Amino acid sequence: MELGDLQRQMRSTYFESDAARGADATFRWFTEEVGELARALRTGEHANLVHEFGDVLAWLASLANLAGVDLEDAVARYASGCPKCGGDPCRCPL
Amino acid sequence: MELGDLQRQMRSTYFESDAARGADATFRWFTEEVGELARALRTGEHANLVHEFGDVLAWLASLANLAGVDLEDAVARYASGCPKCGGDPCRCPL
Repeated sequence: MELGDLQRQMRSTYFESDAARGADATFRWFTEEVGELARALRTGEHANLVHEFGDVLAWLASLANLAGVDLEDAVARYASGCPKCGGDPCRCPL
Repeated sequence: MELGDLQRQMRSTYFESDAARGADATFRWFTEEVGELARALRTGEHANLVHEFGDVLAWLASLANLAGVDLEDAVARYASGCPKCGGDPCRCPL
């Protein structure tokens, strides 16, 4: 799936609700999903991990729609290696 | 950009470092980026928002690589509307 298509689909499905809820409440929802991802990482159950990664990414796309940010533009600087050291693989300290 | 290509690029650039750091420390880095996104949302400066959304998505992809989760699979249930109510647009309560 194209990242842009995901973001457009999220806009089509959720923008009206996201805009009514507002950026702050949408950020709060996003962090709830981050918390659920933390728990899924602790338990390590694969289907649950898949579910929670999907939710975090979906809410991130909703938030990006509210903030007027194109996620493809946003990750473009990672497209050919580390944006800090230029390495692929990265040679930055851990 | 294909979501799968982003995740493969992140693997090529960072998997060795991510694996050495481990999932818990990588999750902590991810949440640092979430905090930076929170601040960018407060200030509202567009270039900063683009930067921070990119970082959050990049670290989410790193974490998914460590957890063995394919982000395309993870968001597949959002591909044709809301996975809860089936609506596009969503008709769930806020």
